[in-house]
Amino acid sequence: MRVFVPFDARDPKTRLAPVLDDDERAAVARAMRRDVLDALAETSHDPVVLATESVDADVPVTVDASPLTEAVNDALAGVDGPAAVVMADLALATPAALDRLFAPDADVVLAPGLGGGTNALVARHPDFRVDYHGVSYRDHREAAAAVGADVATVDSFRLAVDVDDPADLAEVLIHTDGHTAAALREAGVELAVDEGRVAVSRSGENGA
Amino acid sequence: MRVFVPFDARDPKTRLAPVLDDDERAAVARAMRRDVLDALAETSHDPVVLATESVDADVPVTVDASPLTEAVNDALAGVDGPAAVVMADLALATPAALDRLFAPDADVVLAPGLGGGTNALVARHPDFRVDYHGVSYRDHREAAAAVGADVATVDSFRLAVDVDDPADLAEVLIHTDGHTAAALREAGVELAVDEGRVAVSRSGENGA
Repeated sequence: MRVFVPFDARDPKTRLAPVLDDDERAAVARAMRRDVLDALAETSHDPVVLATESVDADVPVTVDASPLTEAVNDALAGVDGPAAVVMADLALATPAALDRLFAPDADVVLAPGLGGGTNALVARHPDFRVDYHGVSYRDHREAAAAVGADVATVDSFRLAVDVDDPADLAEVLIHTDGHTAAALREAGVELAVDEGRVAVSRSGENGA
Repeated sequence: MRVFVPFDARDPKTRLAPVLDDDERAAVARAMRRDVLDALAETSHDPVVLATESVDADVPVTVDASPLTEAVNDALAGVDGPAAVVMADLALATPAALDRLFAPDADVVLAPGLGGGTNALVARHPDFRVDYHGVSYRDHREAAAAVGADVATVDSFRLAVDVDDPADLAEVLIHTDGHTAAALREAGVELAVDEGRVAVSRSGENGA
């Protein structure tokens, strides 16, 4: 099926500013998009990047400068049949995790993100529309019910982690070895392990 | 199989102190243990609480005041055959998620936690031992390899979320409706939704 991969090319990933400068954030955002597209390429589906401006990719790119919710709903409205939406910052996504998204035979399939977001979804019901504001996972369940669509949920750690905050970079370094991990290493980001939670540091900033 | 559920009864969940006082933290910790045991009760396995001091539970309780790693390794050493370890703060655990932990036919099965921890595991190899310090998920993979044990990983959001920090409480409120969610509501903790990440607040503290 058609899989839309929304990508915001304008000042991406601002919450990573404590760890990465502008150019590094852009490089990490590109690398995450590549990792997501690489994982999708090993499934039997057809990804399309839905970007706010023109970007380089090995798959078709649709440019739509609208806000995320509007751009995704316009994209869904233009598809006759099922479609999926997979965020471009799911750096931990694997073909196996994505196959679990596509597997359930439900009108709407949701992969919750940390913090109540919806990191990936499949829409097989023609009237289902998204709204990414607020606790979108909860809202999407209600939106599905409102149009009479049954809902399945995918319980996946790899799809639940979207990379927004510095703490999320630790997950990338622990669980992946793709373009994103390489971009982080290039920027000197490494795991910082102390007695508390695992975090990340820049090279030379952590004496441990 | 025997499933050990480690529980630290001494000043539990100190990182929740910004949101919950001592008594509330103790109540939430107890509620999480009950939710985990309730979920395990719907699997075909035999939970035992492995507690630092005597606690009330509907299942057997083994008291061991040793640090976590030592207590778990002593427990594993006392079992002839496979055994599992499921942390008592996995408030999002469901029978279905736990069944996925028990399903793989591997010597060692690991359910990674956020931040590099190991939230649940199955040990079928007699020489496998745990070490919960640092990035234990990575270390447990290496420890398994070192004793010639093959490893399977369970990709589960519900098993990846252990409740340590206030942000984790949002996941409980969004995705569960058990004893823990009830204890949080009792303490006046509710979702606080703004334009950024979903968080929690105490009643009356958030004007939004």
